[in-house]
Amino acid sequence: MHPHSSPRPRTGPAVTLEMVAARAGVGRQTVSNAINSPELLRPQTLERVRHAIDELGYRPHRAAQALKTRASRLIGYGIRSSSTRVPTPVLDQFLHSLSEAADRAGYRVVLFAVAPGDDELTSYQQLLDEHGADGFVLSGTDRGDRRQGWLHERGVPFVAFGRTWSGKDVGDWVDVDGAAGTSAAVRHLAGLGHRRIGFLGWPKGSGVGDDRARGWQSAMRELGLPTRGRRVASPDDPEQATEAAEKLLATGATAVVAASDTLALGWYRALRRAGRGPGPEAAVIGFDDSPIAPLLFPSLSSLAQPLDAVGRTCMRLLLDRLGDRDRPTEHILLEPELVLRESV
Amino acid sequence: MHPHSSPRPRTGPAVTLEMVAARAGVGRQTVSNAINSPELLRPQTLERVRHAIDELGYRPHRAAQALKTRASRLIGYGIRSSSTRVPTPVLDQFLHSLSEAADRAGYRVVLFAVAPGDDELTSYQQLLDEHGADGFVLSGTDRGDRRQGWLHERGVPFVAFGRTWSGKDVGDWVDVDGAAGTSAAVRHLAGLGHRRIGFLGWPKGSGVGDDRARGWQSAMRELGLPTRGRRVASPDDPEQATEAAEKLLATGATAVVAASDTLALGWYRALRRAGRGPGPEAAVIGFDDSPIAPLLFPSLSSLAQPLDAVGRTCMRLLLDRLGDRDRPTEHILLEPELVLRESV
Repeated sequence: MHPHSSPRPRTGPAVTLEMVAARAGVGRQTVSNAINSPELLRPQTLERVRHAIDELGYRPHRAAQALKTRASRLIGYGIRSSSTRVPTPVLDQFLHSLSEAADRAGYRVVLFAVAPGDDELTSYQQLLDEHGADGFVLSGTDRGDRRQGWLHERGVPFVAFGRTWSGKDVGDWVDVDGAAGTSAAVRHLAGLGHRRIGFLGWPKGSGVGDDRARGWQSAMRELGLPTRGRRVASPDDPEQATEAAEKLLATGATAVVAASDTLALGWYRALRRAGRGPGPEAAVIGFDDSPIAPLLFPSLSSLAQPLDAVGRTCMRLLLDRLGDRDRPTEHILLEPELVLRESV
Repeated sequence: MHPHSSPRPRTGPAVTLEMVAARAGVGRQTVSNAINSPELLRPQTLERVRHAIDELGYRPHRAAQALKTRASRLIGYGIRSSSTRVPTPVLDQFLHSLSEAADRAGYRVVLFAVAPGDDELTSYQQLLDEHGADGFVLSGTDRGDRRQGWLHERGVPFVAFGRTWSGKDVGDWVDVDGAAGTSAAVRHLAGLGHRRIGFLGWPKGSGVGDDRARGWQSAMRELGLPTRGRRVASPDDPEQATEAAEKLLATGATAVVAASDTLALGWYRALRRAGRGPGPEAAVIGFDDSPIAPLLFPSLSSLAQPLDAVGRTCMRLLLDRLGDRDRPTEHILLEPELVLRESV
């Protein structure tokens, strides 16, 4: 049986160090010394503690082991390998928040590095074997992700920051409602009078990117605004993003919703090349509200992911799952916040 | 006595489970059972093992502790609390690199959250107590930092990303030579013909900031260029950075070296307000080469910290220290790389 599949001890309540200390009429440290550094104690004190240990049947080693098996108090988290050279500011901020929420709950986050193309599941198995992680937090979930199914089959508690984008939806997750965010951005721009609102997204195929595109499209339809020819795509690369933005400008778009702040900067560059700048006549709203957004000139409006809440909620769901493995799964969508600045 | 403060046992070679088994004429598992599950043994076997334990002075708990102390394979790292709302992209990138280097060495990084004003030492103590971390990696060292001395006194292996900026220099560290970076920036700008080269730094008092200012000053002096009135200061705040940059512009500065990319953006904003833009006539070189630098228009030249090398080197020094606690301390300074883009 997997060591993680039995949350409850099968024996009676454990005898604690404190119980031994009380029985012997000494302090905690003295009991600890009697076990670990008996040479530090006077013989009669040592004798008294040993007597109490025998009387109560205190087994320090087993107590420590049982404690460890039942609760390593370690939560595993895969961090993107630095060799990919792709900055991950959203996930980094999430990790800060998760780490803090874990600390408050008496847990610690233990990292392992994963590179794209790695057999990630091996890393999860290793962390279970070597450190007896109590559970995992996943991030960067995407289509074809094997991690949720793998952990679920093994009865390993986990929670994902990110939906199960394909296959059977297993396990608890918390995600940010990207579509709700881009819909809100479209409605805000339409409220300012814009009608030719483009979408500057990533190439189709990513769960997160397609979700953000969907929100733009559905809000445009609701408002009766045409979407044909108004959607362009580029990876998060400055030159390609600029070229994609130039295509949108050529269609006469007066505003754009971008799937990322990096893509939104393509709009800035395209306008500068045309001798213009972003603003009310050429508005742009990015996504993720990166640290640079308030520093740009003009400052960039963006959709901020509520990463503190995501980290806290992930930890809460994981604690609930550790406490009761049979409880129904929970899926929680949190709305991003539209942060308005000079670019609209 | 703290379990970590004595790298070597003061008694003779440790008595092992195997030695007890041989003396009692039983197998390893029987000794283990005698300690952990005595009810499984026949009374006379139990008596024989207990006798051997007493005879040899075997202390199972201490042995387990020593084993744990020697190799929990966990490296502790304090991550900035998300509640500070201050992005730490350099430290985040360092953490990716450190985590990968740790993995390759068969270690894992375990996080704990620290907020400014926290008694951080408590967190270090907790991680030692609860998870028996083998060592620590520090970052964000600054004047008055108590961590190095505290860990050193307790004989806990550690390495710092960042110098010991005040007090006695204890422990191994790896740092980036900020002064060498800003000196190189000044020499590059002077080579392009600039003479009125300003420094846009942080308020005096921080180890890192003063170091970066020193490099600008010494290179200016070497080149015979005046520094009086050419140094302005601002925290990493867009509005204050812009005002500081405007002061430099008012002195007729044609180029500026900034202590951070955020400060460099103050120069961008000040020029835009004056209807100009950064470039050959109003050059700027930032520090840290943040992800945004290549995305700006014009793109920002900056000094890149070799964070992959810092992570790898930290892990190497820590492994060396774990292997031999008495080896001489090592201090390693790595040079930042000047990444030239359109802003010069």
